[in-house]
Amino acid sequence: MRQSIPRAPGPSDYSRDMAEQRLAFVENFSGVKTTHTRGYSFDPAILPGNIEHFSGVAQIPVGFAGPLLINGEHAQGEFFVPLATTEGTLVASYNRGMKVIYESGGVKTTILDDAMQRAPVFHFEDARGARDFGIWIGDHFNEIKAQAETTTRSGKLRNIEQYPVGKLMYLRFNYTTGDAAGQNMVGKATFVACEYIMAQYPGIKRYVLSGNMDTDKKSSRLNMLHSRGKRVSAEVTIPAAVIENLAGAPVDVLLQQRQVSSLGSFLAGSNNNGSHAANGITALFIATGQDVANVAESCAGLVYVEKTLDGDYYFSITLPCLIVGTYGGGTGLATQKEYLELLGCHGAGHVRKFAEIVAGTVLCGEISLASAVMAGDWVSSHDKYGRNR
Amino acid sequence: MRQSIPRAPGPSDYSRDMAEQRLAFVENFSGVKTTHTRGYSFDPAILPGNIEHFSGVAQIPVGFAGPLLINGEHAQGEFFVPLATTEGTLVASYNRGMKVIYESGGVKTTILDDAMQRAPVFHFEDARGARDFGIWIGDHFNEIKAQAETTTRSGKLRNIEQYPVGKLMYLRFNYTTGDAAGQNMVGKATFVACEYIMAQYPGIKRYVLSGNMDTDKKSSRLNMLHSRGKRVSAEVTIPAAVIENLAGAPVDVLLQQRQVSSLGSFLAGSNNNGSHAANGITALFIATGQDVANVAESCAGLVYVEKTLDGDYYFSITLPCLIVGTYGGGTGLATQKEYLELLGCHGAGHVRKFAEIVAGTVLCGEISLASAVMAGDWVSSHDKYGRNR
Amino acid sequence: MRQSIPRAPGPSDYSRDMAEQRLAFVENFSGVKTTHTRGYSFDPAILPGNIEHFSGVAQIPVGFAGPLLINGEHAQGEFFVPLATTEGTLVASYNRGMKVIYESGGVKTTILDDAMQRAPVFHFEDARGARDFGIWIGDHFNEIKAQAETTTRSGKLRNIEQYPVGKLMYLRFNYTTGDAAGQNMVGKATFVACEYIMAQYPGIKRYVLSGNMDTDKKSSRLNMLHSRGKRVSAEVTIPAAVIENLAGAPVDVLLQQRQVSSLGSFLAGSNNNGSHAANGITALFIATGQDVANVAESCAGLVYVEKTLDGDYYFSITLPCLIVGTYGGGTGLATQKEYLELLGCHGAGHVRKFAEIVAGTVLCGEISLASAVMAGDWVSSHDKYGRNR
Amino acid sequence: MRQSIPRAPGPSDYSRDMAEQRLAFVENFSGVKTTHTRGYSFDPAILPGNIEHFSGVAQIPVGFAGPLLINGEHAQGEFFVPLATTEGTLVASYNRGMKVIYESGGVKTTILDDAMQRAPVFHFEDARGARDFGIWIGDHFNEIKAQAETTTRSGKLRNIEQYPVGKLMYLRFNYTTGDAAGQNMVGKATFVACEYIMAQYPGIKRYVLSGNMDTDKKSSRLNMLHSRGKRVSAEVTIPAAVIENLAGAPVDVLLQQRQVSSLGSFLAGSNNNGSHAANGITALFIATGQDVANVAESCAGLVYVEKTLDGDYYFSITLPCLIVGTYGGGTGLATQKEYLELLGCHGAGHVRKFAEIVAGTVLCGEISLASAVMAGDWVSSHDKYGRNR
Repeated sequence: MRQSIPRAPGPSDYSRDMAEQRLAFVENFSGVKTTHTRGYSFDPAILPGNIEHFSGVAQIPVGFAGPLLINGEHAQGEFFVPLATTEGTLVASYNRGMKVIYESGGVKTTILDDAMQRAPVFHFEDARGARDFGIWIGDHFNEIKAQAETTTRSGKLRNIEQYPVGKLMYLRFNYTTGDAAGQNMVGKATFVACEYIMAQYPGIKRYVLSGNMDTDKKSSRLNMLHSRGKRVSAEVTIPAAVIENLAGAPVDVLLQQRQVSSLGSFLAGSNNNGSHAANGITALFIATGQDVANVAESCAGLVYVEKTLDGDYYFSITLPCLIVGTYGGGTGLATQKEYLELLGCHGAGHVRKFAEIVAGTVLCGEISLASAVMAGDWVSSHDKYGRNR
Repeated sequence: MRQSIPRAPGPSDYSRDMAEQRLAFVENFSGVKTTHTRGYSFDPAILPGNIEHFSGVAQIPVGFAGPLLINGEHAQGEFFVPLATTEGTLVASYNRGMKVIYESGGVKTTILDDAMQRAPVFHFEDARGARDFGIWIGDHFNEIKAQAETTTRSGKLRNIEQYPVGKLMYLRFNYTTGDAAGQNMVGKATFVACEYIMAQYPGIKRYVLSGNMDTDKKSSRLNMLHSRGKRVSAEVTIPAAVIENLAGAPVDVLLQQRQVSSLGSFLAGSNNNGSHAANGITALFIATGQDVANVAESCAGLVYVEKTLDGDYYFSITLPCLIVGTYGGGTGLATQKEYLELLGCHGAGHVRKFAEIVAGTVLCGEISLASAVMAGDWVSSHDKYGRNR
Repeated sequence: MRQSIPRAPGPSDYSRDMAEQRLAFVENFSGVKTTHTRGYSFDPAILPGNIEHFSGVAQIPVGFAGPLLINGEHAQGEFFVPLATTEGTLVASYNRGMKVIYESGGVKTTILDDAMQRAPVFHFEDARGARDFGIWIGDHFNEIKAQAETTTRSGKLRNIEQYPVGKLMYLRFNYTTGDAAGQNMVGKATFVACEYIMAQYPGIKRYVLSGNMDTDKKSSRLNMLHSRGKRVSAEVTIPAAVIENLAGAPVDVLLQQRQVSSLGSFLAGSNNNGSHAANGITALFIATGQDVANVAESCAGLVYVEKTLDGDYYFSITLPCLIVGTYGGGTGLATQKEYLELLGCHGAGHVRKFAEIVAGTVLCGEISLASAVMAGDWVSSHDKYGRNR
Repeated sequence: MRQSIPRAPGPSDYSRDMAEQRLAFVENFSGVKTTHTRGYSFDPAILPGNIEHFSGVAQIPVGFAGPLLINGEHAQGEFFVPLATTEGTLVASYNRGMKVIYESGGVKTTILDDAMQRAPVFHFEDARGARDFGIWIGDHFNEIKAQAETTTRSGKLRNIEQYPVGKLMYLRFNYTTGDAAGQNMVGKATFVACEYIMAQYPGIKRYVLSGNMDTDKKSSRLNMLHSRGKRVSAEVTIPAAVIENLAGAPVDVLLQQRQVSSLGSFLAGSNNNGSHAANGITALFIATGQDVANVAESCAGLVYVEKTLDGDYYFSITLPCLIVGTYGGGTGLATQKEYLELLGCHGAGHVRKFAEIVAGTVLCGEISLASAVMAGDWVSSHDKYGRNR
């Protein structure tokens, strides 16, 4: 006999009482008593739209790294960055990188592109049907855009890519989504657009709202090429003396090792030729109410370095698929909102600033870890800061 | 003048007082007051080894989905699965999938492989030097293994892969790591092994502990091929009537659409031909103290389906890079430990059970979302459960 | 003391006499006498622009397969296809496939896209420089197009893709190139366009005519997504009785095995989920004076199949990067021209017809080999037709 | 009414008379007369096992480049390399590279690995069945090897890789194949091994001889990682003065541009971060009777460069999937055999020498083209040597 988790109808399901009922139910089921899961400080009434079956919290410790000195177009000045993690060394490592970047005059951040996708697929009688449909889509973009945008205030349909394969036409709708990450927004808009297309264009045998070319919650070469969320660059030029002191090696050797790392990534078929962008991204995402599963996509990265004419070390990392929002999703929850506020990034008008802070943070972590690996003190740092497992 | 985050020496840094000092410092710096960040229920003295600069918490709401009925080799019976998320619809969607799988007799889970890597790179005079070194490595595996294992009780060196490129030799050390995820363990063991190799083998010009073929915190084809962490399969056969009711389409159409989705993934160069494994993985990882940044690797997936001779729908997903631990890392923290305990998975001896629960959960989410997309009620579900953004 | 191959100035270098001098020189150098290398039937005076140091020929045996029945938009009716190969079984296998396709009413071919690329890369002071340059490129497309097209009668610049990474901007110029494959044409056009851009746009630190995103003579996901040369589909619906007889298995099993093959390709990180498109493409390319090295790119493929409502087997293959010409390159040489003429494809106005013939041929080979593998007579066929090695 | 190509039974099909009958048939069918297709100098009686429906030849012009100075383990000294091509500039470009390499003391070549694959897939009841089968395979390797090797004198089964996915087990058999390329040999051996396995191991529901993880006639990350055919490196250190004169840029700029090209390749998802290995490989393959369709696989490449302590330019390219033979296939045909003989590479015992010559040639082409692109004289060279299209 299948037992069900207790639920109450509608908004009344979001209360301390219902949470407690559910927790008791699960405790009873498993014969385990818990304490800390009840340790939340907010009223569950804030949660509709963010979770179902609310029962308690996970408390993730947060440490600040900083100051991160940014010379961005949207983020400017110094920031103390909240990192939610349970992995020893992480905060210390990012903090160390931020110190180096501070000494180097700060990190320059630039948003290069901005798009969120939904990618439906349409079935036709044959390849000619798919191709001709593609021409029609090109010719009727404005109407389709108008339809899509009826569903949203902030979403704007920018362009539709086409990928025909045999009798199938995969479309990839690209939107700007204001200050929201926008996955739901573009799903809804594309649904309405597709229904409109179905009504207008004869000969479509079937369509499905996702043909897996979005590629939502997965990493893909396609998204690395054409961006998903923000495409952001972070750059710094570190004086030779500073980086050589940190990494224990001259700039020429760092250049060589960078090539070796990039080649390893290339051969492995990796989605990032850098070190560990996912660490900083994840810690910031948890703290600030981002959809953390987007780490799957956001972790992609492209590192490019140079020795400057002065012999200094130019380092850049471009995150082609950084999915962030400062509005909607988990950004308005209790702690999440507060961490965004501490960064001056909560709410409308701040998403680009926040994207720059994430990219700047990631760069600091890259400098720090790559130097540690080079200097050979990577393992000893983990011995010092990390749990010995 | 660069301001530093307040710190106290040694263990005394991990106290409510120091956390408060730091939080006050950051609040003062940004002119923002926070409340909920202080809302933690544990003593910071438990945190050394898990974070630096501890200042407060992120409170992530948790909902349970279940019962998840598993017929595993390590996980058997019913489980209520804690999912920490801020994304509306997620818990409901996994819960719905679990109901269907329950009706189908449960999900069968199998661990296919188990390995954690560190991949150093060695530089030689020329390609012949690299190749000859590879032969030596093969011939001296037992000694190298013995050296590596001096550093750890639970880590065992299983094999060393070789990837020579020109004068470089990339090695990839594969370990089993007991109940820990094991990244630090294998880093340390490989470091000692490399130092031993350096002492024994002449002609190495330089080595670096990671040549980016691990590929730690990144997704790669290499890891999908050769596993990182656990390679786990989850399988179910859903009666035709059940799935057709859910998806609103006959099994033949589901097979066709699966092919379309897989082809989209193939063309896009994606790391997963399924729907959204990252969602379930991330939510479980946050709740249970996993290194959430490993979502970057763990999100890879391989979906394979069949129509059975009886016309039913066999669905399987294999996660080739599921990185989990039930010991070490964040698994011992306050709420994290409790959620693991509710699953009967805390501590030594439970990692395989936990891996199976994750895989089983992921499968339920795949069934649920793929059916919703097919049935066309994906967008309306989000309207019902999700925040309208 | 380095010896040089004998050469004569200018056109006089292209004569039987000079070829003989060179052959004698090489024979003398290696102490080997040759006979058949002199066995060519044409006047070397036709060769300038096609080869340097002409010394003799390779004689590649050609067999015809056919009739290939095509229902294309440019190729219509029956064709006997010249295949130049030294691999036993190849012609027989394609021929067998053509017989099956004939019985199924012929193959339907469709050209979905058409573009040839050159992809320069521009260096800037920083990422903002790269991004702003991208905006300028968008705003000045018409002028750039006009400049590029000054160099060619048949080449038309269609669009310019942008891929910014840090301070670099990779551009990818897409041209239609009439009946020529067009690599040289687009190289020259893009060079002139780039020189124009350099003169107009300040702040470019350096540019290089290829940043390896073309990706000339290599295979890439990018080219599979956005096409290089022709993107062509070939489709057929094979009656169930016909395919089941050939493959020795019911359509449902063929669908299942197709999924297994596609999954293997996905996991392997392959550029083609089909069987052996490269075989037919190469044999046709050698016979007809194509740039055979383009097999590196042209071999990519996307197979998609269905069971029709009548239970028959729909099979399609899309070649996203088929690089062909019927004008220029080797298409005017002695035997090459003749084989093109036998197909009714020599010279201007025929490139699309030829592309359809190639795609149709490829499909026949896919049906034939996949069926042989399925039926288990693959090895025995090779024993029968192939050299026993 | 379908017309068939004329055929005669057995060996009598391989005669000038039958070739003429077929040619006349095709000429008659298409209303086109040909001349040069008849221009072959050999007796068709040599062709059984190499082609079916033999009707004539393709005459591909051959030019020599050289001397190529090699310091290999198997190829030593100077070689004049026969390149069969119809692409102007190709021979000149390789020749130019060989001159530079000569001045630099020659190219050093090294064979790093050697394996040919066939990759069957086995179906089981469930994932546990697949996994347990994998254990059995490991335990019974010696017997399986013995069975496989009953079919061949020169083929040796080296190891079997395992890639389990759900209820499927993909195996990848690796053989050494003596002086033959070996695809047919390993197909036959693996077939016998599989039949043996089927007889021994209960519970296999079905197997198919290729699950597309070989990945025959396709390019894949898997083959780049684990080699297919020979994995060969070619290396050279070019004095700074020499390369700077050629490329018109200092070594530091070349290093930077190499990084830019590698990054473009990485982002594009390419199978080669170099320039145009396929050009030299294809031209050599056509001349020497290789299976030219293997260009699909052989074109993969891994370039790695360094600035030496003396400031010179170390350049290497590793070809991970170079599929070559000096015995069997087309290597014994009329011109093919002669070109192999001119290289001292015909027949048994020479395959490694030949592989080194191919790799050495490829390196020369890389140096030449990369320098031309850098120096900006790429387009003007094509104007000089190539047909203006």
